[in-house]
Parts: sequence; structure tokens; C-alpha cells
Amino acid sequence: MNNSTTNRQVCLANRPKGLPKENDWAIINGTIPKIEQGQVLTKIKYISIDPAMRGWLNDSPSYVPPVGLGSVMRALTVGEIIESKNDSFHVGDWVSGLDGVQNYAVSYGSEYIKVDLSIAPPQTYLGTLGIAGLTAYCGLINVGKLQTNETILVSGAAGSVGAHVGQIAKIKGNKVIGIAGGSKKCAYLIDKLGFDAAIDYKKGALLENIKQNCPDGIDLFFDNVGGITLDAGLSVINVGARVIICGAISQYNLSKEIEGPSNYLLLLRRRARMEGFIYFDFRTDWPSMLRELAEWRSAGKIYGLEDITEGQVDIFPSTLLRLFSGDNFGKLIIKLPD
Amino acid sequence: MNNSTTNRQVCLANRPKGLPKENDWAIINGTIPKIEQGQVLTKIKYISIDPAMRGWLNDSPSYVPPVGLGSVMRALTVGEIIESKNDSFHVGDWVSGLDGVQNYAVSYGSEYIKVDLSIAPPQTYLGTLGIAGLTAYCGLINVGKLQTNETILVSGAAGSVGAHVGQIAKIKGNKVIGIAGGSKKCAYLIDKLGFDAAIDYKKGALLENIKQNCPDGIDLFFDNVGGITLDAGLSVINVGARVIICGAISQYNLSKEIEGPSNYLLLLRRRARMEGFIYFDFRTDWPSMLRELAEWRSAGKIYGLEDITEGQVDIFPSTLLRLFSGDNFGKLIIKLPD
Repeated sequence: MNNSTTNRQVCLANRPKGLPKENDWAIINGTIPKIEQGQVLTKIKYISIDPAMRGWLNDSPSYVPPVGLGSVMRALTVGEIIESKNDSFHVGDWVSGLDGVQNYAVSYGSEYIKVDLSIAPPQTYLGTLGIAGLTAYCGLINVGKLQTNETILVSGAAGSVGAHVGQIAKIKGNKVIGIAGGSKKCAYLIDKLGFDAAIDYKKGALLENIKQNCPDGIDLFFDNVGGITLDAGLSVINVGARVIICGAISQYNLSKEIEGPSNYLLLLRRRARMEGFIYFDFRTDWPSMLRELAEWRSAGKIYGLEDITEGQVDIFPSTLLRLFSGDNFGKLIIKLPD
Repeated sequence: MNNSTTNRQVCLANRPKGLPKENDWAIINGTIPKIEQGQVLTKIKYISIDPAMRGWLNDSPSYVPPVGLGSVMRALTVGEIIESKNDSFHVGDWVSGLDGVQNYAVSYGSEYIKVDLSIAPPQTYLGTLGIAGLTAYCGLINVGKLQTNETILVSGAAGSVGAHVGQIAKIKGNKVIGIAGGSKKCAYLIDKLGFDAAIDYKKGALLENIKQNCPDGIDLFFDNVGGITLDAGLSVINVGARVIICGAISQYNLSKEIEGPSNYLLLLRRRARMEGFIYFDFRTDWPSMLRELAEWRSAGKIYGLEDITEGQVDIFPSTLLRLFSGDNFGKLIIKLPD
């Protein structure tokens, strides 16, 4: 299946309703493309699996166009350049980009970020030094205007973004409470990541537990989950709070209408704001953010758990589903065979 | 009933469920209080009727404490000082404050705003030069960061706040679309207030009409209504839009849970924010805002329709209900007998 003449690709066959099913995908053997002047050929080594992927499958306006029917599934990747007709890239360079769920990609490289293996291993450029770290950083600092001595609530806290949110907020001198599913994830938040408290939503009584752990309310709520979790967090916001909407993993696969936050009028009573963002918008700031994230990482102040599954692109459909079952633990990545 | 020895007062007797009923109120004849050193005695002349009043009746945390059971109903007022033991105020001065639904109030005056009758008649200090004008100004400019050449959608546009929002946005060089109930109100928005378009929500097809009138989307949505109106407006927000939550008159009297905006995830896709505010928070800016509002008013650039009902405080319970039926037209005010 993986040889030098075949480019195995996962393409979108049908627009899923609810959770994507196996037959929503078509896995095909394409040919390895030829490159032209200015282009490079990249051999993809790692594929990032992200909740945002679910939104890209819907035929509705978003911050990026929907993945076309019959097109290769969009994905963030890390790969090695194996052929170059572009002076900015050399064979053996490692890069991160949106090369999709396939073995090989052709690119002009204009959107590539160079991967420096002397700083971190390649897969970390999909986690702490990639989408997870950058999303957490942009959401907390650029959008959330995080101060010090604030109380921060994070949902999906054991997820790759949430884990970084909590750690960055701690580095910046704040109190951090995480919401996650299961005692193992909750222990990890406290013991490994240094959160001040963790709430296991699977135990029920979510709102009561939030109130107990945030007796003085919260100043910033970083929400990855939506639904009843968002409503519970809204109910304890302080005056001037910022509610950062990063995602809504509880809602992405609903076939009924999305559950809007019934408590949104607390934004008025508490003179608070709720704001969405996408880390792509802060691209010009990425270099300085990545420097800071790399420093924290090498100083042992920030840790990015990676949940790496090895296999051919064929495992993409089932691996994606692990995001929505809450089964994965850490940044979910597929490592392709060499 | 109205004589020099009686202070007639409307007090809260029960916390209403849904629309306040007659027996949720107790109307009593109090005595006119004596003033002490530093205080003034104010004879109340005009009482402002505002949607926010409904929220003050609930026993839940808000930006002000709930009105206590048995207490005089909180209300913005304009009155004349008839006795003074405070050097800052003289008999014959007119003032605006939170003196409540009664005939006489005692105050140290620290929260009073002086009413200059050479600029506008007293009741206008409850409309264009009071809560309506200031709320519109603070929401659009301070919170909404209104620019020029933007497209603004206003719900409850024929209400006292909405009407000022639209006119200020026009003064600042923007395109303004209003949502109101009935052809009379819609004609008023266009013919009298200079809105670019008006949508009659009672005709149905709200979302389609918004899309038709805002083909390039909206940059700022000033929402006074909530519910399906908020969801419809959210569905057309542009990247970077501001959704200003001023109120939710469609939701205040529901006995079921408030309807949260099902489209809130568009805040993420469009990198937009939804923010609540209260004009009280901008008190230090009021003098300059009031100067500007008064200039616009005297130049004929801004108009505040006043819907004045004359009567004793006894008419308060029924007058309040007119806000929620959509029956009133313009800033609702009770004028007390002399």
C-alpha cells in the first residue's frame, strides 16, 4: 500500500449526518504528483486530528470552505521535503502545513511553517508548538486579555488545547479549574499539569461542583465543549468576564439544532463578553508565540501529552471518532509508516 | 389622593411569574418624609417605564439588587426639589434620579443628575437626554466600537433605545436596518428617523427579510429582543462583528427557560463577539455624551418620541404591561399630577 508510486488518500465521499461513518469516506490510491518550478514535494509523516475537522465536513459557510465531495480530507500535517524546485526549501527540510490526509503533497510552500527538529520532535509541531499551543495562546492572551490573579475555568481541559490553556494561565499567575471526563483525566490535570482543581463532569452535579470550586466566580471561561457546560460556566461569570468560544465538541455531531446558551443574558447583567476566534487570524504573531512556547517547554513549564496512533491513512476515519467519544487522551496524531 | 400630606407609593407585593399581575403590587399612602441635614425632598413629576424593570422584580443576582418585597418599586424619575438642606441643591432645581414609583422622595442627591430646562423639557431627561439616549450611545460607541460605513441591525428599533441607536448610527455615517412590529412603526423608522430599511417582524419570514436587506451581512447587531430575533441576526454577522446585548424583551416574561441563541457558534466562525453592557457603568462619560446628544437634538438630527400617560402612580402596573405587549410607541413615561 505504501510504496514509491502510490499516494494513498482519504477523500470525502458523503457529507455525514451526525458522527461520520465509514462509508462517508473513500480511500483511494492516487499517483505521486510531479512538481513544477517553485513547488516542493512533501512526504507526510504526521497527521493532526482535530475537532474542527467535523465542521469542515458540513456544507455551510465557515472560516474555511467545506471540504469538497471527492476531495482529499483537509488536515494539518508535518512532513519532510523529498523534492524541491523552490529555493526556500531543501530536500530534508521538515515543514508543517495543511497537506491533508494522504501520503504525499505538492505545495508552493507559502503557507508552510518550518519545523526545527533541534527544538522539538516533529509531532510536537502539531501539539505544543502547533495548533494546540497556538490556539491556547491566542485565545487566552490575544482574545481573552488574560491578566494575573484571575480565576480561569477551562472545559475540555484534558484535551490538547485545554491542557495548554490551563498551563499557560498558571504560568501567567492565575487560578485554574479544569473540567474533564473521568478520574484519570482529572488526576492528570492536577498532578501533571498543575491545575488548581479538576471537575469530573461524568460524576454529575456539574454546576454545583463549579460553584464549589469557584466561590468567587470566574473571570475567564475558555470553552471547548458548549451545551450544558457552557451554560454552567456562564452562570458563574464575574463582572467584566471574558467567555472564549474555542469550540463546542458536545454539539458538533448533533443532528438536531445546536443548544444555545440559555444563560447568555448574564453577559448583560455581568457586562461580560463572549467571543469566538481562530488561531489562523494571528499568523503574524505566531513566531513570537512559538518562541515563548518553546522556552516554556524546554524549561519544563509546559507539557503536551501526545496520543499517537501509527498506521496508514486508512485508520483516519476510526481515529477521528475517538475525538468525539472522549476516548483519546492528549493531542491525537496519526504517524504514517516510513 | 394627591395632597400635601400623602406620599402615594407602588410597592412590590409578590414576585411575579411571567407578566406582572395587578395583585403583585400594593399601592399605599405613605407619609411625606422629613429631611435631615444634607438631604433634599423631591417632588416626583415624571416616571420612566423601562424593560429592565422586569428583571429587577426577580429574586436573582443582577447588576442591581432585586426590588425588595414590600419596597417601593425602583424607577428612574425626574422631579423638582421642594425642600433642601443640601448646599448643592436649591428649591426649584430639577433633577433626575432613581427615586421610585411614588410622589415624594428623600435623597442626599449624590446620584442625582441636574436637569437643565433651558436645553430640553423635563421628560426628555428620561428619553433622548436620559436612559434611552445614553444607553444607545454607550452601546454603540463605547461597547460596539462603531465605525463608519458599517451595516447596523437594530431590533426593537421603534423602542426608545432602538430609535436612538439607529439615529446615532446614521449620524456616524452607517447603513441602518431596523426590526419593529407593524407597518406604522416601520414607516416611522424610515420616514421620521431616517433608517435605511425597516423589517416588520409581524409579517413573518424574518430571516429572509434580514438577508434581503443586508446582502453584505452586518457588522454590528444591537439586540433588544432576544429569542428568534437574536438567532436571525447572528446568522448574518460578518467577520469581526459586534453583537451588543442590550436586552431581551421577548424573553423577560417567559416562565420556561430563556431561549439561548442556537447560532452562537457563528461567533467562532466569524471571529465575532457578543457583549452585554449597562449604561450605568459609563457614568463618568455621561456629561460629554449628554452634551453631544443635546447638540444633535437641537440641530434636529435626533428625535425622541415620547409616549406620555398622565395619572397618579396607580397607573404604573397597567402602564408597565404596555411595554411587553408592543403597544407603546416611543419612550414610555408616566406624568404625575401636579
